[in-house]
Amino acid sequence: MPATQVDLVREYLIDLQKRITTEIAKADGGSFVPDRWKRGKGELLQGDGITMILEDGAIMERAGCGFSHVVGGKLPPSATQNRPNLVGAAFEALGVSLVFHPRNPYAPTVHMNVRMMTAIPEKGAPEFWFGGGMDLTPYYGFEEDAVHFHSVCKASLDPFGAELYPRFKTWCDEYFCLKHRNEQRGIGGIFFDDFSELGFDGSFAMLSSVGDAFLDAYLPILNIRKDTPYGERERSFQLYRRGRYVEFNLVWDRGTHFGLQSGGRVESILLSMPPLASWAYERKPKSGTPEDDLYQKFLVRKDWI
Amino acid sequence: MPATQVDLVREYLIDLQKRITTEIAKADGGSFVPDRWKRGKGELLQGDGITMILEDGAIMERAGCGFSHVVGGKLPPSATQNRPNLVGAAFEALGVSLVFHPRNPYAPTVHMNVRMMTAIPEKGAPEFWFGGGMDLTPYYGFEEDAVHFHSVCKASLDPFGAELYPRFKTWCDEYFCLKHRNEQRGIGGIFFDDFSELGFDGSFAMLSSVGDAFLDAYLPILNIRKDTPYGERERSFQLYRRGRYVEFNLVWDRGTHFGLQSGGRVESILLSMPPLASWAYERKPKSGTPEDDLYQKFLVRKDWI
Repeated sequence: MPATQVDLVREYLIDLQKRITTEIAKADGGSFVPDRWKRGKGELLQGDGITMILEDGAIMERAGCGFSHVVGGKLPPSATQNRPNLVGAAFEALGVSLVFHPRNPYAPTVHMNVRMMTAIPEKGAPEFWFGGGMDLTPYYGFEEDAVHFHSVCKASLDPFGAELYPRFKTWCDEYFCLKHRNEQRGIGGIFFDDFSELGFDGSFAMLSSVGDAFLDAYLPILNIRKDTPYGERERSFQLYRRGRYVEFNLVWDRGTHFGLQSGGRVESILLSMPPLASWAYERKPKSGTPEDDLYQKFLVRKDWI
Repeated sequence: MPATQVDLVREYLIDLQKRITTEIAKADGGSFVPDRWKRGKGELLQGDGITMILEDGAIMERAGCGFSHVVGGKLPPSATQNRPNLVGAAFEALGVSLVFHPRNPYAPTVHMNVRMMTAIPEKGAPEFWFGGGMDLTPYYGFEEDAVHFHSVCKASLDPFGAELYPRFKTWCDEYFCLKHRNEQRGIGGIFFDDFSELGFDGSFAMLSSVGDAFLDAYLPILNIRKDTPYGERERSFQLYRRGRYVEFNLVWDRGTHFGLQSGGRVESILLSMPPLASWAYERKPKSGTPEDDLYQKFLVRKDWI
């Protein structure tokens, strides 16, 4: 992996983080606080990052967007499921990851991640691959929002192969599933990993296309929903459903779980946590309510486009 | 394992659940709602249980106390770390587990668990062992509460050997540690597993002594703290610290994590979740405040007695 290629990706990611946080801050009226960090010798992972966080904003109750670029001596087994030959290899990982939790229960939570890994096995040539995606988690479902989100995801992938969207859409449905409840996290989106089949240039172009599509996918939805009037009922349901977000991330998300158990930077990893979440015993909405609709019509695997 | 011994333990556990929920309900003024469940053929685990839950009470914001008694065909590796010969054996597990989250931030959250496992290996005689303990998680620390809680724990174990309390106290400190933050969950208590060294009668007597001690350990503390005046500051800190409780249970707790991944009864396993919890970036209390005292003087491994 020539250093110039890593530099290219790094440059793209830092710019993407800046573009996204600038636009979201504009929509909110507040601003992201940057926290630049560096981890040196003596730490499990060395590298640097920029954590951007907007808390208690007018629109965003908690919005975190982190860039990180780390190198490590030993690739963990959880980092790639499909390349067992690389377990234990020296590696480099860089990416942007975000989760935005708006305050208004009619505005959905969103997650996006774009990343590149490189690894240098003891025998053989260096390898690289890309991963990431984005997915939407509404508290109140709107079919037109789901269609819009998926359409933008699809459009970002179509130039690189018509088979990519259906493949990554299915992958997303399978990944963002709370298996202990047999329940989808949200209405899905796209998810991919171990991607290098278009070579460096083509694969990086695809990754960039996904990253560039994020604001188009999410901002229009946020703008339509953010001022919807709501009361205690909607707020209570939102907090309860946010508990599911916590369950997914802490129990099932490979990155979160591995990061916490292996000495990653805790506050950056937990940017995804909601500002407030609730749990209640056997809470089930009455049939025919909008809350029940969420479970019946939106938290299911289906073709939105 | 004679069936009569399992019956004895079952009878004790059901009575213990009843005694504890009766006293806590009396203190609260509300009542626990019982949910009797049964899992039959076709499920991964067969058996029955009684889930008792008190939500939105005057004193208890969420208090769950569950009894369960299940049999399974294959003992999971996470069920016992010290008996690899039993992995995959048919097993029977019964226990009472509780977590009480009071509303008042000056009243601590508490957890208690008493359980017995039996396993029938393919070769060799059936084996049994006991496990459990209790631990206290204050939001505002009071040395006299910690001393009282630990003293009652110690007194419950001393008749069975003076070495048990120090051994189980250390085990508790090691177990209830958020390793990703290098932070204790609370002021500890006692924790043990794989315990059968006093034979069935002696070990069961010890387990019962621990179970019986729970109300003595917790109720006086609850009664002293439950009416302490508090405002937004204390409530906010409580919700933030409850986020740590979620992190521990979903990321580190063997029982919770295994249960969720292996098809256990979700709503019973998640009785431990707080009714409301919050997350915030790099929230650190100012030096010298009671909130800082919690970290400096209470969330540390120390000898309380």
